[in-house]
Amino acid sequence: MIALNEPVVVGNEIRFIKDAIKKNWISSFGNYNKQFDKFLSKITKSKNVISVSSGTAALHLALRVLGVDKNQEVIVPSLTFVASVNVIKYLNSNPIFMDVDYDHNLNIDKTIDFLEKKTFFKNNFTYNRKTKKKIRVLIVTHMWGNALDFYKLRKVCKKRNIFIVEDAAEALGTYYSYGKLKKQHVGTIGDLGCLSFNGNKIITTGSGGAILTNKKKLAKKILYLSQQAKDDPIRYTHNEVGYNYRLSNLNAAFGCGQITKLNKYILNKKKNYLFYSSYINKISGLKMLAPKNYSESNYWMNVLIIDKSIIKKTPYDFYKRLLVKGIETRLIWKPNHLQKMYKKNEKYRVILSEEIFNTCLCIPSSANLNKSKLKTICKAIKEIAIN
Amino acid sequence: MIALNEPVVVGNEIRFIKDAIKKNWISSFGNYNKQFDKFLSKITKSKNVISVSSGTAALHLALRVLGVDKNQEVIVPSLTFVASVNVIKYLNSNPIFMDVDYDHNLNIDKTIDFLEKKTFFKNNFTYNRKTKKKIRVLIVTHMWGNALDFYKLRKVCKKRNIFIVEDAAEALGTYYSYGKLKKQHVGTIGDLGCLSFNGNKIITTGSGGAILTNKKKLAKKILYLSQQAKDDPIRYTHNEVGYNYRLSNLNAAFGCGQITKLNKYILNKKKNYLFYSSYINKISGLKMLAPKNYSESNYWMNVLIIDKSIIKKTPYDFYKRLLVKGIETRLIWKPNHLQKMYKKNEKYRVILSEEIFNTCLCIPSSANLNKSKLKTICKAIKEIAIN
Repeated sequence: MIALNEPVVVGNEIRFIKDAIKKNWISSFGNYNKQFDKFLSKITKSKNVISVSSGTAALHLALRVLGVDKNQEVIVPSLTFVASVNVIKYLNSNPIFMDVDYDHNLNIDKTIDFLEKKTFFKNNFTYNRKTKKKIRVLIVTHMWGNALDFYKLRKVCKKRNIFIVEDAAEALGTYYSYGKLKKQHVGTIGDLGCLSFNGNKIITTGSGGAILTNKKKLAKKILYLSQQAKDDPIRYTHNEVGYNYRLSNLNAAFGCGQITKLNKYILNKKKNYLFYSSYINKISGLKMLAPKNYSESNYWMNVLIIDKSIIKKTPYDFYKRLLVKGIETRLIWKPNHLQKMYKKNEKYRVILSEEIFNTCLCIPSSANLNKSKLKTICKAIKEIAIN
Repeated sequence: MIALNEPVVVGNEIRFIKDAIKKNWISSFGNYNKQFDKFLSKITKSKNVISVSSGTAALHLALRVLGVDKNQEVIVPSLTFVASVNVIKYLNSNPIFMDVDYDHNLNIDKTIDFLEKKTFFKNNFTYNRKTKKKIRVLIVTHMWGNALDFYKLRKVCKKRNIFIVEDAAEALGTYYSYGKLKKQHVGTIGDLGCLSFNGNKIITTGSGGAILTNKKKLAKKILYLSQQAKDDPIRYTHNEVGYNYRLSNLNAAFGCGQITKLNKYILNKKKNYLFYSSYINKISGLKMLAPKNYSESNYWMNVLIIDKSIIKKTPYDFYKRLLVKGIETRLIWKPNHLQKMYKKNEKYRVILSEEIFNTCLCIPSSANLNKSKLKTICKAIKEIAIN
C-alpha cells in the first residue's frame, strides 16, 4: 500500500524521547516544549510561538483570544477542513462562507466585494448588513501548503478593523518569494497563524499544533488560556475559563526530532511534485495543481485536477480504482456550506468550491516516495484516465 | 527536590514507543490506542473505553454526548479542579455548585436535599425551581483517588431522570470493596466515567484521558465526536460539530507501558499512605485524610489535615516552609464558587469546601518514594507543626 501522506522518521525522535523519559519530562514539565517552540520561531521568524495539542486547538485558541463570541461572525472559506469552521461554533459564533479561487485558497476579490457590499462600518467596527452582527475575524487558508498572498486584503481588513487568522496547518516551511511579503513565512502575515503537526503533516508530533504571532500580548494570553488560565498557580486562582491545550513534552520531543529534517522533507516533496507534473501534465484532461509563483511552497500535498470535458470520470472513480491498485488517495473535503450543520449559514457567491470538490483528488505525497513508486502511481493514474 | 507526584517509568514505555515508530504508527493509525483501551477495559470492567487527548477532553465529550447545552444546568461539587466546571461552560451551560463532605467528595445528603427542595419534576425531566432550566447531568468526583459511594444518590437521580458523570480523573485502580457496589471500579457506576493520564496521575500518557461507559450507543457517539464527527470518512461528510480529541498512538504506546505497572504503583502508594498516617496521625493537630472503608483506594494523593484550633498555621505556611526544604506540596484547589468567572453562579449550602481549602495540603505521593524520603518529609512537617 502506498500511503497518502505518512510520517517519515529519520531524525533524532527516539533519542530525544529516551532523553525526555530519562529526565522524567513526560507531561507538562521539560525543555522540549520550549525547544520545539524555538525551532518553529527560527523557521518562521515569528516572534512568539505557542505549541498546543492539535491544529484544532490552535485555531480555537486563536479565535478565543481575539474575542470571538455569540455576538460575532467569522468569515471563512467554504473549502477547508471542517475543524476550521467547528472552532467558530465552539465559541457560539457563526461562519460566513466565502468562495475559494482556482488555487483552492480564499477568493480575495469576492471577499473584498463582500466587505464592500454586504457590511457597514460603525464606531470602528465592521458589521454584517443582514444580521447586524460584528465581523471581527477573517480566516484565510494556505491549502496544501500553497501560500495565499493576501497583502491587499490585509490592508482592507486593517481599515475595517478585522483581524486575520491564518490557517497555515499544512504550510510549515512555505515562504513568499516575491512581492511585498517576500521572505516572510506564511502564518506570520495576519494577526495569528496556526500550524498542525498531525500525523499526515510535513512534520508530526503525533498530535499537535502551534500558534504564531508577533504580538506579545496575544501570545501571553494564548499561553495562559492553553494552561487552564491559572492566574495564581500556587493558590489555584483562575479568572477566566481556560483549556487543557498544551503540547506534552513527550510529543514535543518527537517534534524536535522531526523538525531538524524539515528541509529534507520539503526537498523530497518538491521532487514528488516535479515528477508528478512532468508526467501527469502530459496526459490529456489531467494536470497537477501548481503552487503560486510568488511563493516557495513546502509541496505538502499533490492535487490532481480532472478536466471533466475530456475525462468522463469523477475523483471518486479514480479513488476507487487506485485503491484497488494499493494506492491511497483522498477526495477533496466536502465544502462546508454543504455540510448538514452549516447548510443554514450565510454564504457569499460560493461556486468554485463545489467545482473543485467535484474535479480534484489528493494523491500520494509522502516525503519518502521514491521514483519507482511515483512511476507506479503515475502509470496507474494514466491507465484510469485512458480506460 | 522531592516532587509532589511525578511519573514513574519502569515498564515497557520505550520499547512500545520504539515499536510504534518502527511501524510508523505515530498519530491516529496504530494498535496501541486499541490496546490501551483494552487494558483499561480489563482493569475497570467497563464494557466500552474511549481514550482521548486529556481528562478535560473526556469530561467535555461526556457532557456533550449527554446533550448539555445552554438550556440546561449541571450540578457539580465546588471543590474540584476547575476543568470539571469549565467543560460545563464550553457547552454554554451553567454549574450549580454543591458542597463536599469531610472526605472531599460530593455531599450526598445536601445534593438530595437540593433536588427535593429546589427542583421540580415535569414531563419526565427535572428543572431548577429558580431558573426553570433543565438539570440533566450531575458530576460526582472521586477526589485524590478516594471512592464516593453514591448508590443512594444514583437511585434518586434515576427517578428524576438525571444522568451521572463520574469524574474519576484521579482514581484509576480504585474499587468498591464493600456494600452494593462491591468489586466495581469507580467510573463505571454512573452513566459515564472520566479518567485522566496527565503527568501527575497514577499512570500517564504525557497528556491523555479516557471515558468509560457500559452503554454501547453512548460509546459509539463519543468515538464519533472525538474524531471530528466523520459520517463518511471517504467523502468527508460531517453531520455534527466534532472535536479533535483522540489520543495519538504515540501517547497510547507510552500508556501501554505504564498501565502494566499499575498494581505496583498502587502498592507503593499504599505504602506511602500507611507510612504517613502512622507518623503524622501521632502529631497533635495533624492527621492524614483516610480513604473510606467501603473502598480499596489507589492512594493517588496524600492529604494532610491541619486542626487550626491546635496548630496556628495555614496550609500556605506549610507549603512555603516545605518548599525551602526541597519538598514540593500543593494547596487544595480554590473552591470554584469563589473563582471570578463562577462567583455569580448558583451554589447550595457550600460550607465545607471552603474549610477544606483553608485547612488541607497535598503532600508528596509519587509511587517511587522510599522510606528515607518519607521520613524526611514527615520530620519536616512535624518540625513546622511544632515550631
